[in-house]
Amino acid sequence: MFNETMLSLGKKRSCIRELFEYGLRQAAIVGKENVFDYSLGNPSIPSPPEVNETFISIIRDVDSLEVHGYTPAPGAMPCRKAVAEELSKRYGIKIRGENIFFTCGAAPALISVIRALAVPDAEIVAIAPFFPEYRPFVEANGVRFVEVPPDYPDFQVNLKALEERITRNTQAVIVNTPNNPSGVVYSRETLENLGALLDRKGKEYGHTIYMIADEPYRELVYDGLDVPFIPTIYPNTVVCYSYSKSLSLPGERIGYVCVPDWAADSEDLFAAIAGAARVCGHTCAPSLQQRVVALCTASRPNLDAYDENRTILYDALSSYGYECVKPCGAFYMFVKAPGGDAAAFSDRAKEKNLLIVPGGDFGCPDYFRICTCVSKDMILRSLPVFEALIKE
Amino acid sequence: MFNETMLSLGKKRSCIRELFEYGLRQAAIVGKENVFDYSLGNPSIPSPPEVNETFISIIRDVDSLEVHGYTPAPGAMPCRKAVAEELSKRYGIKIRGENIFFTCGAAPALISVIRALAVPDAEIVAIAPFFPEYRPFVEANGVRFVEVPPDYPDFQVNLKALEERITRNTQAVIVNTPNNPSGVVYSRETLENLGALLDRKGKEYGHTIYMIADEPYRELVYDGLDVPFIPTIYPNTVVCYSYSKSLSLPGERIGYVCVPDWAADSEDLFAAIAGAARVCGHTCAPSLQQRVVALCTASRPNLDAYDENRTILYDALSSYGYECVKPCGAFYMFVKAPGGDAAAFSDRAKEKNLLIVPGGDFGCPDYFRICTCVSKDMILRSLPVFEALIKE
Repeated sequence: MFNETMLSLGKKRSCIRELFEYGLRQAAIVGKENVFDYSLGNPSIPSPPEVNETFISIIRDVDSLEVHGYTPAPGAMPCRKAVAEELSKRYGIKIRGENIFFTCGAAPALISVIRALAVPDAEIVAIAPFFPEYRPFVEANGVRFVEVPPDYPDFQVNLKALEERITRNTQAVIVNTPNNPSGVVYSRETLENLGALLDRKGKEYGHTIYMIADEPYRELVYDGLDVPFIPTIYPNTVVCYSYSKSLSLPGERIGYVCVPDWAADSEDLFAAIAGAARVCGHTCAPSLQQRVVALCTASRPNLDAYDENRTILYDALSSYGYECVKPCGAFYMFVKAPGGDAAAFSDRAKEKNLLIVPGGDFGCPDYFRICTCVSKDMILRSLPVFEALIKE
Repeated sequence: MFNETMLSLGKKRSCIRELFEYGLRQAAIVGKENVFDYSLGNPSIPSPPEVNETFISIIRDVDSLEVHGYTPAPGAMPCRKAVAEELSKRYGIKIRGENIFFTCGAAPALISVIRALAVPDAEIVAIAPFFPEYRPFVEANGVRFVEVPPDYPDFQVNLKALEERITRNTQAVIVNTPNNPSGVVYSRETLENLGALLDRKGKEYGHTIYMIADEPYRELVYDGLDVPFIPTIYPNTVVCYSYSKSLSLPGERIGYVCVPDWAADSEDLFAAIAGAARVCGHTCAPSLQQRVVALCTASRPNLDAYDENRTILYDALSSYGYECVKPCGAFYMFVKAPGGDAAAFSDRAKEKNLLIVPGGDFGCPDYFRICTCVSKDMILRSLPVFEALIKE
């Protein structure tokens, strides 16, 4: 009657969202102040003020038919150019407006690239820990999902394991740095080695292996860390970007795919992405949002709150004996579960109204994720619970 | 290297957009006032003023994190409820917020329903003349596209031809009324007969055949015509709606799927649609736009300009000898090509800088479409060209 895959994907609750909704129910029983919800990666820093001012000035000052009209599928060219120019300037490269395809956020960007590459027997590789949605995005669109085990304990890339998993059917490797869930930023060395490997294997198999750089957290880094722009390291890179976290606009569904001219077969790849977007229902990205981000390309969030949260949590949890790599980016921490079974540990934590996400779906069943995009107050109130749990 | 279907869909230019871009180039050569562009269905009536006021007041008055935050995948419940309540009130029925799934416009709404129904060997039927994108939406998502020939000359539904094309694999029939490209509104009698047919054939084959009501033009009707709400006629109807035309927000990508409780297996169908949306990259519909439409459910466009255009064009073209059913809805007219070959006629018109879309992709190669969402001035300037063409 119904497509089995779609039905089960629609029925299967996300473990993250279940935890979040449990938290809301518990708050009604035990009081909001007694629930410590680290489940959802929803930004807690508001958009920079100029973003909201830009929304208002566009609506107020620009002709309504122009603001709200259809744009071409890849976006309005002036907006595409604004994004391209900012990237070009920042990284000292040449990205053209024609290389940018605006999407309704990173998810459809990724899926358009995946479907563009979905030839018969295609495989796409993800490196654990990875965003759980990669699996259904890949599998439900006709591609085999291949998982590379984590590089413990630093969560860079296990290159040996990756090499073993690359076959003649490998079309792409998804790279997510700064990483959800680990908060780790891949080093330039890691990316160079990764690029060299894909280059070598691509030559061996006689076709390009693309890197898909999923970069919603590009702007969220701490300690002045350098986040390399991957297309400058490995040319056959497609960037999937979102303004969800960098401008705190997760609900507004605005992001892009960038296919640089120097990527192999870039024109055909861009066309295939456009075709894939079309049959996923993409008409254009929200036209108002295109204009807003084009006018705010230089805006950056004030990350002080995330940074402070990260430090408080890292220092406290380390002092209690938790093992964790200190995150340098994004707003997550990925912590080794005492006892080694994160699902069991998460259940124990839940009994104390501490909501943490077990890492099984991220490809690391012995770790749990906590989101640091929460209030400092909640963190401080939750620390005794973390301490008690590891002592039990 | 790339998925062949996606590549060819990305490379194949839409005939409509090619015409439109040709018009822009010609305007630079012969002057804007000498190009008569009837190609694009882009609203020419601005959004009702309260829509833009609502955009501004939400940004100004509501907490930024709330406005721009993720909503649940089907949408924010207060917004879903607002839409459901308006439908319930208007049609005297009971639609709940839980029946509404906000999407980024009608295209992803349709595709989510199509993928939800994409079982092995599935077929989906469209009734000519139909929106050309139905074909790639269906075919590229693993379903056979079945075409029912037009019901000349009134463009209601050729029920006999439809019945002949329904098989045990038929999962759904797409119904688009008011219709793009004909401007025809299916009568209650047509819809009742259609419903009775699907009911009978569904019983014969032992499974539900859904009606997919693609309704972006529901609010665009003239002469006070009644547009029946199809789920009240045929219970197994899923509505795909968009605010693109009704609030003149085509670029803003906001619409919904409505699965009424009384549709067969409505809960599973809703879940399968949610699963399909997820693997098309849907995270949520733009959160700001959800709030805007929820606060403007009662807003209606001022259709006077479209209505006047329709009358001027219908009267003039009829007086020159063109055959056409007078449109009662949407902003299109579908006109029989003198000579019977609309592609050839469109080429002749193009030489005179009159841009009309031949009907081949709509399933009617002997008709052409003109959009009446244009300026009255352009219409008046173009009439002599229409007259000259039929006299040649």
